[in-house]
Amino acid sequence: MTPDITRWVTTVALVRPSLRDNTSDADRLAGALKKQLSTDVVEIDFEILKKLPDLLRQWDYNVRCVVFRDRDRWVLTHIDRSGDTPSPAGLAIDLGTTRVVLRLLDLASGKTLAESSFDNPQISVAPDILARIHHADTPGGLAQLNDLIITGINQALMDLCRSCSTDPVDIHLLALAGNTAMTHLFLGLNPHWIIREPYIPVVNRPGVLKAADVGIKAAPRARMLIFPNIGSYFGGDLVAGILYSGINKAMDTAILVDVGTNAEVVLGNSSWLIACAGAAGPALEGGVTRMGMMAAPGVIDRISIDPATCEFDVHTIEEKLPCGICGSGVIDLAAGLFLAGMVDIRGRLLPEKCGTRLQEKNGMHHLVVVPRDQSATGYDLTISQADIDSLIRSKAAMYTILETLTASVGMVPGDLSTFYVSGTFGSFINPGSAISIGMLPDLPINSYKPLGNSSLGGAAMALTSPSCVDEIDRIRDRITYLELNVNQEFMNRFSAAKFLPHTDLSLFPSVKKRATFF
Amino acid sequence: MTPDITRWVTTVALVRPSLRDNTSDADRLAGALKKQLSTDVVEIDFEILKKLPDLLRQWDYNVRCVVFRDRDRWVLTHIDRSGDTPSPAGLAIDLGTTRVVLRLLDLASGKTLAESSFDNPQISVAPDILARIHHADTPGGLAQLNDLIITGINQALMDLCRSCSTDPVDIHLLALAGNTAMTHLFLGLNPHWIIREPYIPVVNRPGVLKAADVGIKAAPRARMLIFPNIGSYFGGDLVAGILYSGINKAMDTAILVDVGTNAEVVLGNSSWLIACAGAAGPALEGGVTRMGMMAAPGVIDRISIDPATCEFDVHTIEEKLPCGICGSGVIDLAAGLFLAGMVDIRGRLLPEKCGTRLQEKNGMHHLVVVPRDQSATGYDLTISQADIDSLIRSKAAMYTILETLTASVGMVPGDLSTFYVSGTFGSFINPGSAISIGMLPDLPINSYKPLGNSSLGGAAMALTSPSCVDEIDRIRDRITYLELNVNQEFMNRFSAAKFLPHTDLSLFPSVKKRATFF
Repeated sequence: MTPDITRWVTTVALVRPSLRDNTSDADRLAGALKKQLSTDVVEIDFEILKKLPDLLRQWDYNVRCVVFRDRDRWVLTHIDRSGDTPSPAGLAIDLGTTRVVLRLLDLASGKTLAESSFDNPQISVAPDILARIHHADTPGGLAQLNDLIITGINQALMDLCRSCSTDPVDIHLLALAGNTAMTHLFLGLNPHWIIREPYIPVVNRPGVLKAADVGIKAAPRARMLIFPNIGSYFGGDLVAGILYSGINKAMDTAILVDVGTNAEVVLGNSSWLIACAGAAGPALEGGVTRMGMMAAPGVIDRISIDPATCEFDVHTIEEKLPCGICGSGVIDLAAGLFLAGMVDIRGRLLPEKCGTRLQEKNGMHHLVVVPRDQSATGYDLTISQADIDSLIRSKAAMYTILETLTASVGMVPGDLSTFYVSGTFGSFINPGSAISIGMLPDLPINSYKPLGNSSLGGAAMALTSPSCVDEIDRIRDRITYLELNVNQEFMNRFSAAKFLPHTDLSLFPSVKKRATFF
Repeated sequence: MTPDITRWVTTVALVRPSLRDNTSDADRLAGALKKQLSTDVVEIDFEILKKLPDLLRQWDYNVRCVVFRDRDRWVLTHIDRSGDTPSPAGLAIDLGTTRVVLRLLDLASGKTLAESSFDNPQISVAPDILARIHHADTPGGLAQLNDLIITGINQALMDLCRSCSTDPVDIHLLALAGNTAMTHLFLGLNPHWIIREPYIPVVNRPGVLKAADVGIKAAPRARMLIFPNIGSYFGGDLVAGILYSGINKAMDTAILVDVGTNAEVVLGNSSWLIACAGAAGPALEGGVTRMGMMAAPGVIDRISIDPATCEFDVHTIEEKLPCGICGSGVIDLAAGLFLAGMVDIRGRLLPEKCGTRLQEKNGMHHLVVVPRDQSATGYDLTISQADIDSLIRSKAAMYTILETLTASVGMVPGDLSTFYVSGTFGSFINPGSAISIGMLPDLPINSYKPLGNSSLGGAAMALTSPSCVDEIDRIRDRITYLELNVNQEFMNRFSAAKFLPHTDLSLFPSVKKRATFF
C-alpha cells in the first residue's frame, strides 16, 4: 500500500473526453489519480467538483493535485494549474503544553519555508496539563481553552505566512502532534477522563480532519492529520518522535527518550516497540526546572568543576554575566559536585569539600554557584540541598523508567545501540554529565543522538513523505504500552537509583573509573 | 461485504472500560460497531466525539447508532439512548424534472411515515431539462436553479415532517434519485457539458455527502446518498428504478421501461444489464402529452370503442364531465380507432368509418372524442391527425428502442419474461391498448408489471436495506450503456415501427387476431 508518489503534490495529464470515453470530469480525474496512486478510492471534495468542468477545459486537462490519505482513502484537497506559483504549502505543528512550534513547508519540494514558536496561550488560565484538565470541567472552561489554542495557532500561522510572503489559503495540508490532553483541548474534546482511572481518552486516532472544521484558518478544504495517541499518557507527539527517529525501522534495538512535560520513553526496533511514560514516577521536568530557568542570555548552560581544586568553570548563554541556571547546567553542576567529592553518593553537600561556597539558610545547606560580585543580579546564585535532592529523585525516576522498560524485554540499559534524546533536554545536556549522575545509562558518548524537536520533525515528515502515513498507523498498532503505575518493581528500582550514580556501581563502569574516591 | 445488519439503525452494548481495557471512548464504540458490521473502518463524526464521553457514561455504555456506508467506509452519523423515541427517520427523494416526491421513513422499522410531492420549482424559470441547462449558463442562473430546488425540498421536508409530528433534526439519512441534469442542479454543479458532445457530466458518482453541505436542513450530520448516473442521459433515477425492480438479481431476462421526461430502458438479469435512453429518438413524452393533460378529475383516462358500432365508451377520472384526455386515454383511443378500422395502418383517420365524428379545420382532420354537449368545457374535445401522427412517432420510437436494445443481445422483444413499467405511465396505461398500437411488444398481459414510482422506491430501499448500497454500485459498474444516437440501424427500425401495430405483423399475433380487417 505504499503510495507511488514521493510528495503529496502530483501532476496528472488526463485523456481528453470523446464519445468513446465520456466518463464524467470527476471520474476522469479520479481515474488518472487512482492509476498514479495505485489505489481504488480517490475522493474529490465537493467544492472542487463545482469548478472542475471549467478548470479542466481551461487547463487543457493538465492538473496539479494536492492529495492526502486517511487509511485506504485518498482525498483530493486542491487542484491548480501545473506550474502555478506559489506551490502548495503545508504546516507542521508541534503542540506543546508550554510551547507551540510551527513549520511552514513547500509541499512540492519538501523545503522548510519558515518556522516560529510561541508560548501556549492556555498557560494564562492554567499552567500545566492537570490544571487545564480541571479548568476544562468549569463552565465554559473547555471552550475557553480550545479557543485560546485555536486563536493562538491562527495568529502564529498568519504571522509565519507573512514572514515568507505566503498566503494562508495556500496551506493545503497540516499535521499536528501533541500529547493526548493538548490534542483533546485542540479538538475541543473533553479531557476529563484522561486523568481519572481507568484513564480513557475520548479518541485515540482522530485521523484526518478538515482544518476548517476545527477552526484553523488555512485553505478552506485543507486537511489536517492529527497524530494518534497510544493512551492518556502517551500522545501523538511521541508517535511523531518515533517516526522522526526511525527506531521503528532499524534492525538494532534503540531507545528514544523525550523529556518534555512528561518523560516518555520508547524502546524497540523494526519488529517491536514498547513504550512507557514517566508521569507515573516523580515528575522529572519539575525536578530539573524548578531550580532553573528557560535557556536565555546569561543563563548558565554548562559548568565544569576541577576535581583537584574544586574550582568552577561557568559558561553562560551568549557569555553574558550569569543570572540563573538551566537544566543542562544543573546536570553539569551535579555531575561536577559528585566527581569532585563535594556531594556524597546520596547527593548531600559535604561542608569539608564545599568550604566557603556553603551557606546555611533556614536550616538548609545552599551552595554558592556564582558569588554576588560575579553575578548579573547582584545576589549570590545558589543551589539548595532541596534542589539537589529533587534532581536526584528526577534522575532516579528517569533511570528507573529506562531500566524498567529494558528489563521488560530482558535487556539492561547498557545493551542499547543508540540512544535518541528529543527536545531541548536532548539538544543541550552533556550526556557525560547525565551519565556521571546516573541519569542516563553508561553507554559510549557517541551512542547519544540529540534529535531536536522530534515531534515537529515527525509532523513535518507526514507532510513531505506520503509513505509515512502508513508508518504512523503501524507504529500506533504495533506499540505495546507499559503502564508504570501498575508495575510493582518500579519503586524498588527507584530506591536503588536514588544514589550517585547508582547503588549498583557495576552499571556505571566509566563513572567508577573517573570518580577517584570510589 | 454484505453487512450483517438489516437496518441502518443498530444498538451496541459496550464493554465498560478498565485498566486492562483502557482504549478511548471512540475506539470502544467503533470497535463494537466494527464487530457488528464486519468491517475494518468505522468513522465517527467529530461532533459526536465531542459529546461521546458524557453520553456513554450517562447511557451506561448502551448506544443506539445510525450508521451509513460509502463503499468500504462506514460512518456513524448519530447516537442516542437505546429505546429513545422517536426513532431516527430517513427521507427518500425522487427528484423529477417536473415533480419531486418525498417519502419519510422510520429507519428502524423501515415503515413509511408520510409522503408528499410538489412541482419542481425550477419550472418557474425553465420548463424542461434543456432550458434549465441553458439557464444555468446565464449569470447567476446555476445558483438560482440550485436555490429553487434546495429551498423547495427544505420547505416540503418541513411540511412533511409537520404532517406526522416528526422533527426535521430527527432525519439522519437521506437518499436522492434524479436524472443526471437534475442531480447536477441539486448539487450546484454546472450541467453545461451534459448536452454538448461528447456529453460529459461533472460527476458520475457523487456518493455520500453531508446533507448540510448541500443546504438540506435535516440533522446537522445527516448523510445523503446521491444515486449515481451512468452518463449524461442515464441518471440515478433509473439506477434506483433498477434496484427497485430487482431485474439485476433475477435469473430470467427482464426489461424495465421508465417513461418520464425521457424514455429509459434497461434490459438484463443477474449476470448482465444493458441500458439505453430515448432522448436520442423523437421525444416520447412530448408525443404523448402534447395533446393531453396531466391526470385530474374529468380527464379521460380510459376509452373503449366498439368495433362493430364504432361507439365510444369514455371513462373520466372521478367520473366527472370530460374536460381533456391523458396519456393512457390517448393510447386507448388510438388502439380503439385502429381495431375499429377508423384509422388505417399508418394512423390516418378514415372518413368512411369516422363519419360525423370527423371534422376538418385548417385543412386537417380532427376527430371528435366527446361532443360539446357532453363535455365539461362546452366545446368539442377533439384529437387531430397531427396528434395521432405524433403518437405514432412516439410509439414507434418506444418500440424501436426496445427492439434495438433486445437485438443488441440477440433477442427480440417477445422473448422477455417480465416487462416492468415505471412511473405514472406504467401505472395507468392499459397494456393491451399499448400492444394493439405496437408501442409495447406482444407479450401476455400478465407479463406487464407496473412499478409505480420506482425511483422513489429505490431511494427508499437504500434507506431501509443496508445490503442495497453494494447493489447500487454493482448496478452502476455492470451496466452497459448503448448510445442510441450513434446506432445506424435505429432509423430503419423506426421507419418499420411507424405502422399500426408494425410493418411486420408476425411480431403482433394477438393484434392480428383481434383486428378482424387484416
